[in-house]
Amino acid sequence: MEYRFSSSVSQLKSSAVRDILKLTQGKDMISFAGGLPAEELFPVQAVREAADRVFEAGSGALQYGLTEGYLPLREQICERMAVKGMHVTPDEMILTTGSQQAIDLLVQVLTEPGDAILVERPTYLASLQVFAMRGLKVIAAESDEFGIIPESAEELIRTHQPKLLYSVPTFGNPTGRVWSLERRKQMLELCEKNGMLIIEDDPYGDIQFNKDEQFPSLFSLGGKAENGHVLYTSTFSKTVAPALRTGWAIGDSRVIRMIAKAKQAADLHSSTMDQQVLSQLLQKFDLDAHIALISKEYGERMAEMESLLKKAALPELSWITPKGGMFLWVELPDGLDAEALLRCAVQKGVAFVPGSSFYADNVKRNTMRLNYTHNKGARTEHGVARLVEAIGEFTVRS
Amino acid sequence: MEYRFSSSVSQLKSSAVRDILKLTQGKDMISFAGGLPAEELFPVQAVREAADRVFEAGSGALQYGLTEGYLPLREQICERMAVKGMHVTPDEMILTTGSQQAIDLLVQVLTEPGDAILVERPTYLASLQVFAMRGLKVIAAESDEFGIIPESAEELIRTHQPKLLYSVPTFGNPTGRVWSLERRKQMLELCEKNGMLIIEDDPYGDIQFNKDEQFPSLFSLGGKAENGHVLYTSTFSKTVAPALRTGWAIGDSRVIRMIAKAKQAADLHSSTMDQQVLSQLLQKFDLDAHIALISKEYGERMAEMESLLKKAALPELSWITPKGGMFLWVELPDGLDAEALLRCAVQKGVAFVPGSSFYADNVKRNTMRLNYTHNKGARTEHGVARLVEAIGEFTVRS
Repeated sequence: MEYRFSSSVSQLKSSAVRDILKLTQGKDMISFAGGLPAEELFPVQAVREAADRVFEAGSGALQYGLTEGYLPLREQICERMAVKGMHVTPDEMILTTGSQQAIDLLVQVLTEPGDAILVERPTYLASLQVFAMRGLKVIAAESDEFGIIPESAEELIRTHQPKLLYSVPTFGNPTGRVWSLERRKQMLELCEKNGMLIIEDDPYGDIQFNKDEQFPSLFSLGGKAENGHVLYTSTFSKTVAPALRTGWAIGDSRVIRMIAKAKQAADLHSSTMDQQVLSQLLQKFDLDAHIALISKEYGERMAEMESLLKKAALPELSWITPKGGMFLWVELPDGLDAEALLRCAVQKGVAFVPGSSFYADNVKRNTMRLNYTHNKGARTEHGVARLVEAIGEFTVRS
Repeated sequence: MEYRFSSSVSQLKSSAVRDILKLTQGKDMISFAGGLPAEELFPVQAVREAADRVFEAGSGALQYGLTEGYLPLREQICERMAVKGMHVTPDEMILTTGSQQAIDLLVQVLTEPGDAILVERPTYLASLQVFAMRGLKVIAAESDEFGIIPESAEELIRTHQPKLLYSVPTFGNPTGRVWSLERRKQMLELCEKNGMLIIEDDPYGDIQFNKDEQFPSLFSLGGKAENGHVLYTSTFSKTVAPALRTGWAIGDSRVIRMIAKAKQAADLHSSTMDQQVLSQLLQKFDLDAHIALISKEYGERMAEMESLLKKAALPELSWITPKGGMFLWVELPDGLDAEALLRCAVQKGVAFVPGSSFYADNVKRNTMRLNYTHNKGARTEHGVARLVEAIGEFTVRS
């Protein structure tokens, strides 16, 4: 039997991260590849108690739910959003299977195949997969330590007239960088002027190491949901736990209604068990204290990895110290191919994601993404030692 | 702000069932509309104990999982499938957010916009929404009490050369009918001869009132997954509980791998919390005994509703007694428009789904779908009485 697959899925590259994760099944492998939160920090007991309260409420908890998601949880998320200057009603929000689904549905609802979408270079791998699946033309603006460069974006907008900007402005994946306030305002203005909508993907915004600085969301700077240009997505995957697969999108209620229509076809609704557990959790558990705790811990793990890399004193290795999020984005010596390096590193028992995965075009091959949240102490030490050894050898070899 | 939505989502009709469910929020409304299982039969205590065992296993349970789904659960479902003559390995299976997502992903992977897809007339509403979202041309073959009519299908295949057949051969939604063995074999042969793949959607197959008869799945008749023509989907939504949103697709491992690629973009993976709970549940809970219990109960509820309708002795009302599933499909007097009837019925405090929602073309307006699983006893009695009153009045009026 010859199966003929759709052109969109056929051309889709399998995720490098996924393929690497398969390589890292061996027990002695230390992986800086996946964007995994630290399991030992998951609030298991609190989630368990929350689940108990859901079951106590009776069998209705196991029935079909609304496509838009469990209303009490939407109300609770609205309250949490308001604290960050994002004032929305439950009608302006839909719950999704992680924020990944929110991105996919937004793209389904707001674009036609062949439309152009503007992104930052580099950008989140699995969003590039969404754009490929939907047949979009990805155009990538340059970025620097302050975020996407508006002049680069403007030129591309003029040439390609993209419908949408997809952005991860706060502690982005893969770079961990944060857009400056000025850049945020410039990009908002630029998109408004050109009638472009913005998807602001914010899974990492809560994971900030030092709270002195403020990074207001594009959504909060843009005003309100109604008639707004910004569609904001976030998730509990990084702050509570990924297995509960609960994310959300907020925006004008007309957009949310369209997403609900698309979601009906996609899966009717996401797990209401998970949504009810999260709702119960938020009632008794101090999530903000928990976020403070994991942010502190992740900040320490980042510092640990950074100091190990500094100590190694490899020539021509550079990075920008992240102020939050889960990733360290490292530039390797010119001409060093991180994909080739990975094969060598895996033999030594350490994995990372080659930067090439995060580029839609103009791939910068001498880059890599290191996750620092999933390991610590001796494992991070050994992992970095193996990595440094691989880079050393590889530099000599190449 | 003028939002421009994609043509696929713009043209999508909002689900009639959904709109009706909104109408039925009032407390005195008796709804035969939604395809809701009986809440009071959900195995809440067993699910709760299963969840407890998941939490006892520790924090790893809350981490990211595989796109293909939790492996132990896939292995358990393989065992359950084998009992039904469907022999597959975990590599030939992917877990999805309900079987709705399995249908959506199969369509994404196996079709291009503009392709034709063959269905039975009438067919499952939310699958029609998937086909509309993906830009497919739906062609509908006639059906009778033995299922889809091969001669009608053959003619359409010759004219339109569809890539796929979408079918619900066992206790279908909305008709509750089951394809005869002969029709099953004819359709398998017809599709094989024409190089067409078959999506066999089987959410209701387990809910059989009398086990004397056997209705082997198209998948089991077709042989094995490898190189097979049949892609089979099912779900725990009807046998355990919908809130856990766990369905699956089985088929050739190449198809499954493509689905996994599409699913990565769609949502990375479904709730692994739910999947782990179901896996724990299957270890201790006698699901087959539970299925026997709900099948018996649903059979009684169907008989109850049927006898009430018979007693009413309305002229020109007809239906085929279902042998399983959740729906009674009723033909009303010629010329009676069930959508108009619904507005009248809702005023009397009873709701159903007008049959028109289940047609891609050649709509038969004098049909309605009644769910009999969610109500019983006095509520069913009152509901049917109200419905009979509405039909009586309406027949006089029209």
